[in-house]
Amino acid sequence: MKVRVYYEDTDAGGIVYHTNYIKYCERARSEIFFKQDMMPLDGDRSGFVVKNMEADFLGFATLGEILEVTTTVIKKRAASVLLRQQIYNQEGKNIFNMDIVLVFVREGRPSPVPDMLHEIFSVNKVYK
Amino acid sequence: MKVRVYYEDTDAGGIVYHTNYIKYCERARSEIFFKQDMMPLDGDRSGFVVKNMEADFLGFATLGEILEVTTTVIKKRAASVLLRQQIYNQEGKNIFNMDIVLVFVREGRPSPVPDMLHEIFSVNKVYK
Amino acid sequence: MKVRVYYEDTDAGGIVYHTNYIKYCERARSEIFFKQDMMPLDGDRSGFVVKNMEADFLGFATLGEILEVTTTVIKKRAASVLLRQQIYNQEGKNIFNMDIVLVFVREGRPSPVPDMLHEIFSVNKVYK
Amino acid sequence: MKVRVYYEDTDAGGIVYHTNYIKYCERARSEIFFKQDMMPLDGDRSGFVVKNMEADFLGFATLGEILEVTTTVIKKRAASVLLRQQIYNQEGKNIFNMDIVLVFVREGRPSPVPDMLHEIFSVNKVYK
Repeated sequence: MKVRVYYEDTDAGGIVYHTNYIKYCERARSEIFFKQDMMPLDGDRSGFVVKNMEADFLGFATLGEILEVTTTVIKKRAASVLLRQQIYNQEGKNIFNMDIVLVFVREGRPSPVPDMLHEIFSVNKVYK
Repeated sequence: MKVRVYYEDTDAGGIVYHTNYIKYCERARSEIFFKQDMMPLDGDRSGFVVKNMEADFLGFATLGEILEVTTTVIKKRAASVLLRQQIYNQEGKNIFNMDIVLVFVREGRPSPVPDMLHEIFSVNKVYK
Repeated sequence: MKVRVYYEDTDAGGIVYHTNYIKYCERARSEIFFKQDMMPLDGDRSGFVVKNMEADFLGFATLGEILEVTTTVIKKRAASVLLRQQIYNQEGKNIFNMDIVLVFVREGRPSPVPDMLHEIFSVNKVYK
Repeated sequence: MKVRVYYEDTDAGGIVYHTNYIKYCERARSEIFFKQDMMPLDGDRSGFVVKNMEADFLGFATLGEILEVTTTVIKKRAASVLLRQQIYNQEGKNIFNMDIVLVFVREGRPSPVPDMLHEIFSVNKVYK
């Protein structure tokens, strides 16, 4: 998953605004589903929500750069999944790491991940 | 309606990213409803959508500035409303003007604005 | 120029938030430069700024859709350029049109577009 | 620090997009400086950057809600500061917590926080 840095992503500090690395990771998670012609949800009132994240900002990116986002499935539970997401710049430098726990929610409550969605995630597989 | 410029609003050019002035205007429109304890919609599948806009960028704003957004109702029709929105910086300089046409949509089709929402807009009134 | 619609692009109305079509157009303008290994600026205190835009919202896009943005150069002046940008959904339906005037600014003042940047724009050429 | 939830903050799930809680926290940090008529930087090539964050998403917010963001200084070091930021909804429910480490950077390198900026943070003080 490649992401280009546009003006909208940068801030007055001249570099990518910190929360945008987290947005890039969400795009990468959604692409895992989109590429299988699936949506990351199951009907109107369900979907994955972020429960917890721990992120390290190791470097920064600037306007025009093309970044790569990788997603590794660390653990799968009935109603949740733990992913590690990493962002690399064009020189291959690792500039951002995040461990994120997603919970599947139906009608506002944690609920087993539907099989079709659960099968998309293979533990230890790296999605690029 | 006062709006503070935060890092997220700026870009690598050091000033507010152009589409964010348009976002500030949307906030001002929503506040007209929120301040009356109303929502700018009528049930699940209805609400105002932007049909057309014409905007002039007359100046720019920078990090930390507090801007003022004013909204004037120019014209009301059964299913639409034409507003003029203007943004001023702290010195009172007019930095952005926009004429915007909103259409009320129900189940994906233009539809008469519900009375309660229509009455909120008074022609020629300036909302601050 | 293809753009995927992600969660961040949508709003509680279930469709793409109106200003994001304008962001997609900015991405398309920047890509014209990036693809030539250029930046849309000339040193630290210069670049194109938006002077005026007129936009028509003809349809809408939803989560997961892939949109196409085209950019046509309508007119070139010494210090400015007029572009027409159009967005199409996957079925080829035209959902957004915008005419936009960009002015080249150096140290805060309108200034001739540097030759290298000016040459990138060919009148009547459609950039995809 | 009060924050209103606008359309731009929500996503197709009908609730606030997850990274926007993190943006609200950044606004609250900036306001600590702005309210003292200061900027969170010291000249052109310096400022605080996010080094690490750990966030728990405990609830969610919807369109029109007014949230409160509090910031507590947990630890001050020469070149960094550890803050705990919490978001509450209108009923006083704690919907988001984040511990965040900011490092002061000058010309791209960690550097002692200038006294004037350092003094703004009082350990254990809760900024609202």
